[in-house]
Amino acid sequence: MNLILLNKKEFDSNGIATLVGRRAQHICEVIKPAIGDRLKAGIIDGDIGEAEVIAIEPSDKANEQASVTLRIDSSTLSNSSPLAIDISLVIALPRPKVARRIIGLCTECGVKDIHFINSYRVEKSFWQSPLLSDDKVHQQVLLSLEQSKDTQLPRIHFHKRFKPFVEDQLPQIAKGKQALVAHPYNAKINIDSRADELADLKTQPRIIAVGPEGGFIPYEIELLQQAGFDTLGLGPRIYRVETVIPLLLGKLA
Amino acid sequence: MNLILLNKKEFDSNGIATLVGRRAQHICEVIKPAIGDRLKAGIIDGDIGEAEVIAIEPSDKANEQASVTLRIDSSTLSNSSPLAIDISLVIALPRPKVARRIIGLCTECGVKDIHFINSYRVEKSFWQSPLLSDDKVHQQVLLSLEQSKDTQLPRIHFHKRFKPFVEDQLPQIAKGKQALVAHPYNAKINIDSRADELADLKTQPRIIAVGPEGGFIPYEIELLQQAGFDTLGLGPRIYRVETVIPLLLGKLA
Repeated sequence: MNLILLNKKEFDSNGIATLVGRRAQHICEVIKPAIGDRLKAGIIDGDIGEAEVIAIEPSDKANEQASVTLRIDSSTLSNSSPLAIDISLVIALPRPKVARRIIGLCTECGVKDIHFINSYRVEKSFWQSPLLSDDKVHQQVLLSLEQSKDTQLPRIHFHKRFKPFVEDQLPQIAKGKQALVAHPYNAKINIDSRADELADLKTQPRIIAVGPEGGFIPYEIELLQQAGFDTLGLGPRIYRVETVIPLLLGKLA
Repeated sequence: MNLILLNKKEFDSNGIATLVGRRAQHICEVIKPAIGDRLKAGIIDGDIGEAEVIAIEPSDKANEQASVTLRIDSSTLSNSSPLAIDISLVIALPRPKVARRIIGLCTECGVKDIHFINSYRVEKSFWQSPLLSDDKVHQQVLLSLEQSKDTQLPRIHFHKRFKPFVEDQLPQIAKGKQALVAHPYNAKINIDSRADELADLKTQPRIIAVGPEGGFIPYEIELLQQAGFDTLGLGPRIYRVETVIPLLLGKLA
C-alpha cells in the first residue's frame, strides 16, 4: 500500500475518517506510524495529499479489529495522480483468476478503459465466476491503485456478446483512436518494427484488442477489421494474455 | 502447448519417441491428432521441425496413462527458435509463487539469463521454498518454452548472498552490457524519455536489476552503482515486480 485510498463518504466535515479492516491492519502492522505522523493518502477519483494519524488501536485480545483514525490535511490536497495511459484495451475474457490479475496489472499501469468481451474460444463458464463480481473487481482495483499511487478508478466493462458489441458499440468507442488487434497472421503492423515506425502509433489515443488462448477466429478478426481495427503482429512468439498485455503497454505507451 | 518439446534422450536412432504423462495427455485431449498427422515439435536446446504421429493410446479404463508415439522428421528440422532478447535480468527474489510466474513470463519473452539475488528486503524463507527446486523451475521453463515456441533453455541462477555476488561476480556478468537498476529516486535515465533517447539503450546488450517490494536499500544501490549500474526511473507509479518486468521488456527490448 503505497497510498492510503479513502472514499469521500468515509470522512466527516472535519476531514476525519476512522478506518477498520484491511487498511487499518496494514497501517498498524506494516507502516507502524506514531500519533501525529503524516501518511500519503488519496481520495478515490479525487486528490492526493497527507493525512495525520490522530488515533491508533491495534488489534489485541480486547480489540478484535485494528482501527486507525486519520485527519486529511486539506491544504496538502492536489490533483497529483500519475498520468493515465492513453490506451484502451479490449480483451477476450480469460479464466477468471487471470482476468483478475489483468485487471490488477492494467490498473497499476494506468489503463483507464478495459473491455472484457466474449469470443468463440472463451469458455462460457468464465462469465459466471464470482471472482468477476462488481465487488471483487472493485477490491482488486483498489489494491492496484494503492500500489501505483493512483486515485483514478478505471472503467471496467464486461460485454457478454461479441457481435453486438463489436458491430454496435465498438466503432463508437474506437472513434478517434488508432485501433489495433493483436494477431499473429498477415499482420499489417509489426510490434518488432523500428522504434520510429512505432512512434507513429504513439501520436494519438489507441485501442488494442487481444484475443483468447488460441486467438480470435477469422470471422472475429473480420468483424474487428470492419470496426476499424488493423492487425498487429507480435513476432514469432506466442504469449499468454497476462504476458502480452504489459509487454504491449511497454511497447506502445 | 504451441510446440511439443522433446528431450534428445527421448528418441531412438530412428527418431521415434513415445511420450506419456502431461504432453501425451495434452496431445490426446487438446490437439486430438489422427495417425499420420504432423505436429510442430522441437528439441530442447536444439532445432524445430515436424513430428509424425505414429501411434496414440488415449487413457481409458484399461489404460491409465495416455501415450503418444511420434517420429521426428529430421529433414524438417532447422534452427528456427525465435530470437532471444538481449536483456539479462537481476531480480531480488520475490515470494516463490511470484518468482515462478516471473520465470515463466521471462522465458516466454525470450530472456536467457535470469539472476535471482538476495537483498535486505527479501524474506529469508523465500530461499527455502520447494517451488524453487531445480525440478520445479525446469518444469515451469518447459511450459513457457512450449507456449512461446522456443527450444532454448534460459539460464536461471540463484545467488543467496548479495554482497559477494554484486562485488565479485556481477561486474564480470555485466561487462560489455549497458547496466541499469530500476530505482524511483534521482534516476539518471527515465523510462518515460522520448523514444529516440531510449533508442540509445537498445544498441547494445543490457542487464537490468529490479529490486524487491519496498526497493533496494541505499547501500545496495551504491554497491550496484559501483558494479557499473546506472539508475533507471520508471515514473511516478510504483509497480509490482511481475508487472514491471514485462513492461521493461516491452520498453527496452
